[in-house]
Amino acid sequence: MRTLTVSLGERSYPIHIGPDLSDQGEILRSHLDSKQILVVTNATVAPLYLERVLRQLEGKQVATVILPDGEQYKTMESALAVFDALLEHKFNRNAHLIALGGGVVGDLTGFAAACYQRGVPFVQIPTTLLAQVDSSVGGKTAVNHPRGKNMIGAFHQPKCVIADLSTLDTLADRELSAGLAEVVKYGLIRDEPFFRWLEEHMEALLRRDPEALGYAIERSCHNKAEVVAADERETGERATLNLGHTFGHAIETGLGYGGILHGEAVAIGMCQSADLSRRLGWLAERDVERIVALLARARLPVRPPAELGVDAFLEHMAVDKKNLEGRLRLILLERIGKAHLPIPVDLAPLRATLDEYGRA
Amino acid sequence: MRTLTVSLGERSYPIHIGPDLSDQGEILRSHLDSKQILVVTNATVAPLYLERVLRQLEGKQVATVILPDGEQYKTMESALAVFDALLEHKFNRNAHLIALGGGVVGDLTGFAAACYQRGVPFVQIPTTLLAQVDSSVGGKTAVNHPRGKNMIGAFHQPKCVIADLSTLDTLADRELSAGLAEVVKYGLIRDEPFFRWLEEHMEALLRRDPEALGYAIERSCHNKAEVVAADERETGERATLNLGHTFGHAIETGLGYGGILHGEAVAIGMCQSADLSRRLGWLAERDVERIVALLARARLPVRPPAELGVDAFLEHMAVDKKNLEGRLRLILLERIGKAHLPIPVDLAPLRATLDEYGRA
Repeated sequence: MRTLTVSLGERSYPIHIGPDLSDQGEILRSHLDSKQILVVTNATVAPLYLERVLRQLEGKQVATVILPDGEQYKTMESALAVFDALLEHKFNRNAHLIALGGGVVGDLTGFAAACYQRGVPFVQIPTTLLAQVDSSVGGKTAVNHPRGKNMIGAFHQPKCVIADLSTLDTLADRELSAGLAEVVKYGLIRDEPFFRWLEEHMEALLRRDPEALGYAIERSCHNKAEVVAADERETGERATLNLGHTFGHAIETGLGYGGILHGEAVAIGMCQSADLSRRLGWLAERDVERIVALLARARLPVRPPAELGVDAFLEHMAVDKKNLEGRLRLILLERIGKAHLPIPVDLAPLRATLDEYGRA
Repeated sequence: MRTLTVSLGERSYPIHIGPDLSDQGEILRSHLDSKQILVVTNATVAPLYLERVLRQLEGKQVATVILPDGEQYKTMESALAVFDALLEHKFNRNAHLIALGGGVVGDLTGFAAACYQRGVPFVQIPTTLLAQVDSSVGGKTAVNHPRGKNMIGAFHQPKCVIADLSTLDTLADRELSAGLAEVVKYGLIRDEPFFRWLEEHMEALLRRDPEALGYAIERSCHNKAEVVAADERETGERATLNLGHTFGHAIETGLGYGGILHGEAVAIGMCQSADLSRRLGWLAERDVERIVALLARARLPVRPPAELGVDAFLEHMAVDKKNLEGRLRLILLERIGKAHLPIPVDLAPLRATLDEYGRA
């Protein structure tokens, strides 16, 4: 097992990464200072891993909430189901929540923990690649609103993250690829050597070579932890973690949640960001090609679905929360390995990118 | 105008107190760093004060949400109406909210501000005595859950509090009394000279003598600001601000929100707390009498409604969020002017108090 730390003063916490961590109860129990534990998971993960986690909680007062699987359930309604369970069991302000699942379960459980009695602790046990490398680390929690992704949320750091590599064995290929989108993102925004490593090891990752996966996860978490430690509340560098996300969120909102995986939308959005960066003279044509090629090799979509027109795209981008005072601010790439903080972008090149990507 | 400060480092903010502040736009505008402003108010306050506030926001992009009046609307549903309005107007993460109203509007608006895009600034313009002396200061925000008051919330400090004393001219007598309950609370928990002042000036307060009201509000805010500055997150002294509130919340939950005013429930709860403190040998019989007498002179109820039985009472108290690990922890009075931090209380004396107060 390897342990990284997210350094945030008194809110610092460890990320444990290794195989079969779900069977090592002492790790989990060492982070639970309460008898009252609510485990939140979903209908896909529950049959695979819930029993294992519950076995480690023997002697505690444990309740569970099992949500349906999918981004379309990352809603206030699901959060209310968590509040109902907490209150039904008379759980107090010292109760702990455990998020067992992917990014949806983690974001939603974290948000519920942030709000229940004005904040209770929670633990992340991410079971997807995307959650292990990105969403479980950093304390961003949220639910979606029909008009925009993650529009209702909170900053609430977990007490720890337990990334059990073995849970990836049961991950669908499509989910694995979605996670790789966020892995590639770290290479793009701040870690050029990692990008080159990914170009060399993409096939190993796709065949789930444990050593390659472990390395990619640890290096991703290392990057994420550094960025979060430097800028917890996203007033600066942390915004670069949203590379491709403004485009991606517009795709997700436009298709309706559940129509596309978050990582897939981000992959498309990173291609669009790269294209826009090139149009503005920042990124070389050759590097755009490398980016698109690597994402395509990760079996990710690199163009938006044809049904999402340019006008609908712009409409959905305008309410993205990175947009200040009506000017659309986007993260661009200076080169592979270096993202620029969000800057206002003129409509003309943005439209050109959307037009380019609007053609099937 | 007098200005107090809530000292919380970079989250510090002023409380402005004075007559006709709603007509002095420069105060409000100096706290708004955004073009996008959402004013949340209710159907009682809107006809009286909304136009006045809107006049000061000319040139800005302003939207309003007018909620029905009453504690029964301090719900997630109302918060969702605020999120809908924010997104409908494409308000970004730099938008500001203004809470124009009493405690319900303030708590709900603050919670919506805490969660919208993971947190946007908000300003409190409290228009009831209770909101001016208590709920608008200190950053506790929340909505109610059918199973418990303030169960879903956040700590989110406002950018400023503007307490316009003139708004109290239109306050119903019953609302004025409800606010006096929280005023008396400060005397009870930490300011014995203020309690004596209140004994001497209760009639002046009830006839809304401006000087007396202004003094009571300022002294209350001064006490509140000191407590919050010392213990923002309620890990210690701040809990004493909840004197009577565990009883009070049980009454509110038991009667259904809207059945009794919050301040009225707190008045009853403080009498019960005083009675329990006496039973445990902490408070003199004479002081219990002084407390009950002062609250009664403030035209507040001092006994719970007969329909709320002892068992129902205990049931509702058990989920109160001050209750850790199944032991009921209550704030007791050592004497008038000195509250004790929450301590576990045995069931027997608690039952005795509830029995005593259960008899009509």
